[in-house]
Amino acid sequence: MCGVLYDSGEGDGVAILGSIEAVKKLKASDLQLRFCTNETQAAREKFVAKLQRLGFDILVSEVFSPAPAAVAVLRERGLRPHLLVYDGLLPEFDSVDKTNPNCVVIGDAAEKFTYQNLNDAFRVLTGLEKPVLFSLGQGKYYKETDGLKLDVGAYMKALEYACDLKAEVLMIGDDLVNDVGGAQNCGMKGVQVRTGKYRHLLVSYSLNGYDNAVFRSFCLDRMKADGKSMTGHHRLEMDVSEA
Amino acid sequence: MCGVLYDSGEGDGVAILGSIEAVKKLKASDLQLRFCTNETQAAREKFVAKLQRLGFDILVSEVFSPAPAAVAVLRERGLRPHLLVYDGLLPEFDSVDKTNPNCVVIGDAAEKFTYQNLNDAFRVLTGLEKPVLFSLGQGKYYKETDGLKLDVGAYMKALEYACDLKAEVLMIGDDLVNDVGGAQNCGMKGVQVRTGKYRHLLVSYSLNGYDNAVFRSFCLDRMKADGKSMTGHHRLEMDVSEA
Repeated sequence: MCGVLYDSGEGDGVAILGSIEAVKKLKASDLQLRFCTNETQAAREKFVAKLQRLGFDILVSEVFSPAPAAVAVLRERGLRPHLLVYDGLLPEFDSVDKTNPNCVVIGDAAEKFTYQNLNDAFRVLTGLEKPVLFSLGQGKYYKETDGLKLDVGAYMKALEYACDLKAEVLMIGDDLVNDVGGAQNCGMKGVQVRTGKYRHLLVSYSLNGYDNAVFRSFCLDRMKADGKSMTGHHRLEMDVSEA
Repeated sequence: MCGVLYDSGEGDGVAILGSIEAVKKLKASDLQLRFCTNETQAAREKFVAKLQRLGFDILVSEVFSPAPAAVAVLRERGLRPHLLVYDGLLPEFDSVDKTNPNCVVIGDAAEKFTYQNLNDAFRVLTGLEKPVLFSLGQGKYYKETDGLKLDVGAYMKALEYACDLKAEVLMIGDDLVNDVGGAQNCGMKGVQVRTGKYRHLLVSYSLNGYDNAVFRSFCLDRMKADGKSMTGHHRLEMDVSEA
């Protein structure tokens, strides 16, 4: 979110000049508003509450982030995750069966990326006949007030190397060619939504040999974020489309 | 060393049947004996003491490991390392200037691979105009009594990805074609020694476009370990050659 709607700093940070008013004006119009973020340290409830404290008129139901997308994929494929994510993100996975895990999900776990925790994730993967690793992003690093911080992508690479596998990176969107295709061109898993400009006919057209996971539960309209912009950190993108 | 001279377990572990006698017989002969190990958690003094407690007639001066090879390279190139290694290995770097670091050296740091420590190494590298990363191995994982453990290679990959660089991995030997060349074919840095079967003429012949670092300080005779065997964990290889 930093740099788009607000700048981080003391406490909640500071809203960027004009951004609160811009959201307010768009809300008052006939336009449908959706917010997309690559936030993987906090559950949506938490960071939407922060945005509301800053003065933004934004609801949890209007925000789309990687964790709920991962939950949808886990359900679709009957997978039970071993989670290596920031404590603040755990509530997003409350409804998911995590017993006897048959895959690993990693997010930007920061201080939780201890040797022990990464080794636990590694052991789960090596114990599986068909190891599956999901990464909630592939960013290399991000900037916080005290300097640069290693992002989840570095730890994804560590597990990929140790386990001889390729992680699946999630990206959400409703544009089969530009969003899903763009993600796939970046080596990411594209998740197609059945709303917005989704057309059933197009789904039979598989891009780059990857499968397309289709979920009714997402309702993004013409989300413009492409694969690359999704891997930046703490970015909240605002998207406007016809109602 | 585990699996070659002794098996790990309670305390110092157990010498493999016949290995103590084999070393004794070789020592009593006219043969020159040298031991090569990829141990990067303990200084030579420490693990040689363990071998002596187990009954092996082995001296520190007869043992060659990655840390002293790294020290030689650092000296040769005027580099001051930021170290991310196991505490037990630190004494090997006592003589090295570590102020105002201009490179990073990582070894199998195990529990010392905290988020904070890896981030510190990352920040040193990103702060350098020409970032240089040395890895004391590129093993993916190793086995201890309580199960598999992530090795230094996984963390090397994490830093390579985050910093957009390729680590230099050290391998020592005196055979320009088989040792140094073999290492280079594996993408490792080959360190040529000027003893044993070293011939000055051959050094002008550069293999695979890599530079050969030549150090008088090493005196391995016909070390047979190739690049791949060097990346296993806790392996002590015994090499015998004509006196």
